[in-house]
Amino acid sequence: MANLEDAAHFLRGADKILILSHRSPDGDTLGCASALSRALIALGKSVMFRCADPVPPKFTYLFEGIEYGEFEPEHIVTVDVADKTLLGSLEPYGDKTDFAIDHHASCRPFAKETWVEGTAGAACELIARLIPALGAEITPKIADCLYTGISTDTGCFRYPNASANTYRIAADLLEHGANAAEINRLMFDTKSRAAVALLKRLYGNMEFHCDGKCAVFCLTSDVIAETGASEDDLDGVSAMVRQVEGVLLGFTLREREGGVWKVSMRATNPADASVVCAKFGGGGHKGAAGCSLTGGLEDVKARVVAACGEAIKALENK
Amino acid sequence: MANLEDAAHFLRGADKILILSHRSPDGDTLGCASALSRALIALGKSVMFRCADPVPPKFTYLFEGIEYGEFEPEHIVTVDVADKTLLGSLEPYGDKTDFAIDHHASCRPFAKETWVEGTAGAACELIARLIPALGAEITPKIADCLYTGISTDTGCFRYPNASANTYRIAADLLEHGANAAEINRLMFDTKSRAAVALLKRLYGNMEFHCDGKCAVFCLTSDVIAETGASEDDLDGVSAMVRQVEGVLLGFTLREREGGVWKVSMRATNPADASVVCAKFGGGGHKGAAGCSLTGGLEDVKARVVAACGEAIKALENK
Ligand SMILES: [Mn+2]
Ligand SMILES: [Mn+2]
Repeated sequence: MANLEDAAHFLRGADKILILSHRSPDGDTLGCASALSRALIALGKSVMFRCADPVPPKFTYLFEGIEYGEFEPEHIVTVDVADKTLLGSLEPYGDKTDFAIDHHASCRPFAKETWVEGTAGAACELIARLIPALGAEITPKIADCLYTGISTDTGCFRYPNASANTYRIAADLLEHGANAAEINRLMFDTKSRAAVALLKRLYGNMEFHCDGKCAVFCLTSDVIAETGASEDDLDGVSAMVRQVEGVLLGFTLREREGGVWKVSMRATNPADASVVCAKFGGGGHKGAAGCSLTGGLEDVKARVVAACGEAIKALENK
Repeated sequence: MANLEDAAHFLRGADKILILSHRSPDGDTLGCASALSRALIALGKSVMFRCADPVPPKFTYLFEGIEYGEFEPEHIVTVDVADKTLLGSLEPYGDKTDFAIDHHASCRPFAKETWVEGTAGAACELIARLIPALGAEITPKIADCLYTGISTDTGCFRYPNASANTYRIAADLLEHGANAAEINRLMFDTKSRAAVALLKRLYGNMEFHCDGKCAVFCLTSDVIAETGASEDDLDGVSAMVRQVEGVLLGFTLREREGGVWKVSMRATNPADASVVCAKFGGGGHKGAAGCSLTGGLEDVKARVVAACGEAIKALENK
């Protein structure tokens, strides 16, 4: 397994470098790619960037002013890519990748060399250490890119993956000029009109069962079409269902084709979402799990609510 | 003006200490009081704590296991209290206060000695430096108390008051055992049933004017009574009105007695809420301001919307 020094050594000796982000790119993979691009270009190297999916509008500021080249790549680096299938349509590059830099404990190495630190809250933490090791400067723009990755991957320092080291790197980035408050406002405090329409349906139609300990929200095709909510908007909803005081198990039912309903469940300690979802052939973690059921909406909902009720009763009898 | 060393010197020589928090106590003033209480008791001192208002249930964990004394106080310390009127019914203690520890640039000194650092994101940052200077240990429980104050006063590191130093102190607290993720879940990710009822009304009834650049939500007495929302729940709503994509000026109208409506306005750059509110005799900052108007709801709303419309047009003609 490679380390920081190996990555710095490799990049110091490389030129005509292609940087790859994972498909459905998030703030971390794009923060890494944009920050590393800026540093390598400042060192006089030619750099290209590719991603299977377009950069979402909220992240385009990361790439403003970067002068990418057009050339036949001689070296390929991936950032925040835990598996070559996550390159999407760029998967053929997986076997040609020279160096993979990642922070997923579940990383399945595919590159010639892999530097993975499973305890880092974001891959941007690794890049924040790599850039000075390359002899490049953390400019204010680079600090913005790295802060974006760290803040988005840790839910603005809310999730357990934010370690003391994460906070310390963020402190350094602020001192290098990162506009932390403005970035967080853009990332976390702005709701699209579609998201507002979805929240209107969510808070209007959420149902409570089991004495308020189980909450359900049904994302029918109608709701999705009517609100115009994106996958990104929809993803956040399952977590919100669980956030209501007193709720131990919250889930959304999302309509798929052919009468299939996808269940996304979240649990608050001591409830266990993975145990409930396992009853329907699904799985996941204690805090977040999923499964799929087929049938009519009311029937499917009643079955999952009943399973939640049993789990809640079992906890109460403990 | 006193400093860290003065505060440490004073407390090392003191005993039978009364610690005071500000009225309507928040996570910062209570985090300071509970952390400092624990440290002083560990040093063998007798400590009391008073606040004009009860400790809200979400903050009672801060005080778990603290053994307070009952005695005639010989020394009085205030934490996060910027003005003696903020002591509420305990204001008579203001003139008897020996030492005030605060982080408000607007602090109006009332104690014999005052240590104020206006650049700190939370008063808990000062206490985090004071405790080691006293020769006491930052225990995991103390780390929880201090982290709570820092996280709540900076909106979980989202607001511009979170400095590099704030992040660095948070990193130290994590290393001393603060349960950051669990604290943030309790502080930010849990919504009361009343808050959910309020959000249902908010997202159901929010109005958009001026091509979606002005958003309005009316908190009539009916809505407040029906949802059972607390002042705390209501306070957050004004900020939410402004969070919608494309909104430059968002405001809530909150019904008071006698046909009076209190306007809480938030603005997104380059709009200026204080300029709009000044037209109605109010004031505040560029980002957040307020004013009061008297009249019927529709009339009052139309007048404020018109003022917002003028301000937005002026920006567009620039
Ligand atoms: Mn990541
Ligand atoms: Mn404070």
